[in-house]
Amino acid sequence: MTHGRDCITRCRALALYTEEPGRITRTFLSEPMRCVHADLGAWMRDCGMSVSVDAAGNLRGFYSGRTPDGPTLFIGSHLDTVPHAGAFDGILGVVLGIKLIELLQPRKLGFGIEVVGFSEEEGVRFGFPFIGSLALIGELGAAETAIANAIRAYGLDPDELPLAVASEQALGYLEFHIEQGPVLESLGASLGVVETIAGQTRLELMFEGRAGHAGTTPMHLRRDAVAGAAEWIFAVEAEARGIADLVATVGRIEAYPGASNVIAGAAKLSLDVRHREDTVRREAAVRLVAAAESIARRRDLIVTTEVRMEQAAVAMDPRLTDTLARAAGGPLRMVSGAGHDAMIVARRMPAAMLFLRSPGGLSHHPDESVFPEDVDAALTAGMNFFEELEKTA
Amino acid sequence: MTHGRDCITRCRALALYTEEPGRITRTFLSEPMRCVHADLGAWMRDCGMSVSVDAAGNLRGFYSGRTPDGPTLFIGSHLDTVPHAGAFDGILGVVLGIKLIELLQPRKLGFGIEVVGFSEEEGVRFGFPFIGSLALIGELGAAETAIANAIRAYGLDPDELPLAVASEQALGYLEFHIEQGPVLESLGASLGVVETIAGQTRLELMFEGRAGHAGTTPMHLRRDAVAGAAEWIFAVEAEARGIADLVATVGRIEAYPGASNVIAGAAKLSLDVRHREDTVRREAAVRLVAAAESIARRRDLIVTTEVRMEQAAVAMDPRLTDTLARAAGGPLRMVSGAGHDAMIVARRMPAAMLFLRSPGGLSHHPDESVFPEDVDAALTAGMNFFEELEKTA
Repeated sequence: MTHGRDCITRCRALALYTEEPGRITRTFLSEPMRCVHADLGAWMRDCGMSVSVDAAGNLRGFYSGRTPDGPTLFIGSHLDTVPHAGAFDGILGVVLGIKLIELLQPRKLGFGIEVVGFSEEEGVRFGFPFIGSLALIGELGAAETAIANAIRAYGLDPDELPLAVASEQALGYLEFHIEQGPVLESLGASLGVVETIAGQTRLELMFEGRAGHAGTTPMHLRRDAVAGAAEWIFAVEAEARGIADLVATVGRIEAYPGASNVIAGAAKLSLDVRHREDTVRREAAVRLVAAAESIARRRDLIVTTEVRMEQAAVAMDPRLTDTLARAAGGPLRMVSGAGHDAMIVARRMPAAMLFLRSPGGLSHHPDESVFPEDVDAALTAGMNFFEELEKTA
Repeated sequence: MTHGRDCITRCRALALYTEEPGRITRTFLSEPMRCVHADLGAWMRDCGMSVSVDAAGNLRGFYSGRTPDGPTLFIGSHLDTVPHAGAFDGILGVVLGIKLIELLQPRKLGFGIEVVGFSEEEGVRFGFPFIGSLALIGELGAAETAIANAIRAYGLDPDELPLAVASEQALGYLEFHIEQGPVLESLGASLGVVETIAGQTRLELMFEGRAGHAGTTPMHLRRDAVAGAAEWIFAVEAEARGIADLVATVGRIEAYPGASNVIAGAAKLSLDVRHREDTVRREAAVRLVAAAESIARRRDLIVTTEVRMEQAAVAMDPRLTDTLARAAGGPLRMVSGAGHDAMIVARRMPAAMLFLRSPGGLSHHPDESVFPEDVDAALTAGMNFFEELEKTA
C-alpha cells in the first residue's frame, strides 16, 4: 500500500466514529470524538510523539526537534464534520500531518512539529465555528456557557483554556485540506497553494409585494414578490459573472404564502458573496443591494436587507506560501472560497495551505473523495517543505 | 339599514359559524355548517320558501311561481370557506338570493326560484372541489367513500344523491360572487358580468443541477438550479405580459438543499396559467415548458414538468348573460380567472354570473370586504333580471 492509500484507508476507518450509524456526523466533543482521539493518539505515540488533548478538546501531538528549545511548526486541520459528511474534509489534514512524522521518523529536524487535530471548525453543535483554532490562538476567551459545559462534560476543564494557546516560538502553520471545489479538477491539477482565503458577505433579503389570486389579478395589477426576486437573482448572477473570481449565490428562496394559485406576497432570499479582495466584494454587495432596491422600486415592492455575516479576506503568509509552493513543485496558486482553520491561526503566526483536488468538486457530501496519487503528491510536498524549512530555520 | 347593508351584516354574522374561533374556517359539512343551514333556513322560511338540505348537504330553498309546473330559476353559490377566510366569498351570493326573494315577496313570478347554498366548492376538506354543484347536476355519482362517510356523519344519506339533481325544468342559473380580484376596483366599477370562466393549466416543474459549495465553485463551473429557475420565472412573466389577458403565476418555489452557503442542486416550482381561450392558454403553457427546457439545456440543468391540472374554459350562456347585462345596466363584461360553481352548473343549464367589486382585490383573506352600495346595485340588477325573465319566460 502506498502512503497515500494508507492515509485514505485511515480516513475511511476514522469515518466510522460517528453519531449517526450509516452516516458520518461528528460534532464538537461528541462521544465518537473520543474514539478519534484514541485512534489518532495511539498512532501519534507510535510515531514518537507526545500526545495530549487540550482544554478545547484539540488533539495535540508533539514531535520534538533536535533541540528542546527550537521553534515549532504547527500542522493541523479539524476533526469535526458537518452532518452527513464525507470522510476527508478536515481529518485528512490531520492524518497527513501524522503520516509526515511517520515518514520522518526517527530523524529530528531543527524545529519541533506539533500536529493539531482541531476539535471544532464547522460550527454545527453551537452555531459557533472555529472553536478549536480560536483556542489555539488564545481568542476563545472564557468560552460561552454552553461550550464550557460541553468541555466539562467531555472531562476537560475550561479554566485551562489559556494553556491551550500555541507557544510564542511558532515557526508557522501548515494546513492540508481538500479543495471542496472543482477548480483543480477542471485544470487537471493535483495540488494548489492557497494565497488568500476569500472574504464573505452574507445577506438576507425580503421582497414584499401583495399576495393575490393567481387567476383574478391581471399582470399589470400585480405586485409579485417572487417575480421581483427572480429578476434580482438573474442580476446577481450577471454581476458575479462580470467580475473576475467573484462568486455570488442565492442558495435559499422561500415564497409566502407559497401556494400554486396565489401570487406571492413575499419572498425571502439569502445572498452569499465572496472575493479575495475585500473592496471588490463589498462594492459588489452594495451594487447588488442597490439592484434589489431598484427592481423593488420599479415593481412597487419593498425590499429589506439584513447583513448576516461580514468577514474580511485573510491572506496566507507570503514567505511561508512561497516556501510551500517551491516544496510542492510550483503548483497553481489559488483563492480559497471556503473558510478554514488557517484563516484563524494566521492571526497569530505565518500560515500556509495546500489544497488537494476534490473529485467532482464534491465536499460536505458522503461521496466526497480524494485520489491516492494526490495524497502522495501532498506528502511529497510536505517532506520537501520540511527540507525547505530546515535550510532557513 | 339599506338592503345592501343588511346583506353585509348577515354575512358577518354567519361568519361567526366557524371551526376555528377568531378565524373564519368552515369546510364541507363541518359542525358550524349546521348553524348556517339553521340560520339561512329560518330566513328562507320567513320569506315563504320551502326549505330542505339535500343528500350532498346543499341548503335549498324554493319559492314557487304563479303556477306549480313552471320552470325554475336557480340562484346559488357556496357556503363553505377556505381556511382563515373572509366573510363574503360564496355566502354573499346565497344571502343575495334570499334577499331578492324577501324583496319580491309576496309577489309570484312566472317561474319558481330555488336558492341553493352549495355545501362545498373550495375543495378544502377532501381536496375535491365543487361537491355541492356536482351533486346538483348529477355528476357527483356514487360519492367517494370519505365523502359518503362525511354525508352520513352529518345525518344525510348518500344513496339519496340522485334526488339532489336539479329538475329538467331549469330556466337557468344565476350566481352573484365577489370578484376576488382588482379589475372592477381599478376601473371604478361596482359590477361586472362574467362572460367566461378562464381555463387553467397547472404544472409543477423541477430544475435539477448540482449542489455545490457557494465559496469554492466558480460561476462558470456551476449548475445552479435556482439561477435557472429565476431566469425562467422572468420568462414566464414576460410571456404573460405579452399576451392580452393571459395570467401566469409562479406562486411556489423551493430550493434544495436551501442553505445560504450551498448552490442549489434543485428547485421546485409551480406554474398556474389561465386564459379565457383554451388554445391561447395551451399554447402559452407549451411555450413556457419549451422555455424551461431551453434554459435548462443552456445551463446544463435537467427540467422535468408534470401537469397537475388542465381545465378548459367555460362560457356562460350568451342569452342569459345578455339578459343579466341589461338588468345590471350594461356593466363591464369580464373573464373570471377563478373557478366558480357556475362553471359546473353551466354543464346542465344556462348559467350567468354577476361580479361585485372586491375592495383592494382582496379575497381568501380575513380583510375581504364588499361595499354596501355595490350590494345594493347587485340587488337592483337581480330584481331587474327577474323582470327581464318575466318578459320572456
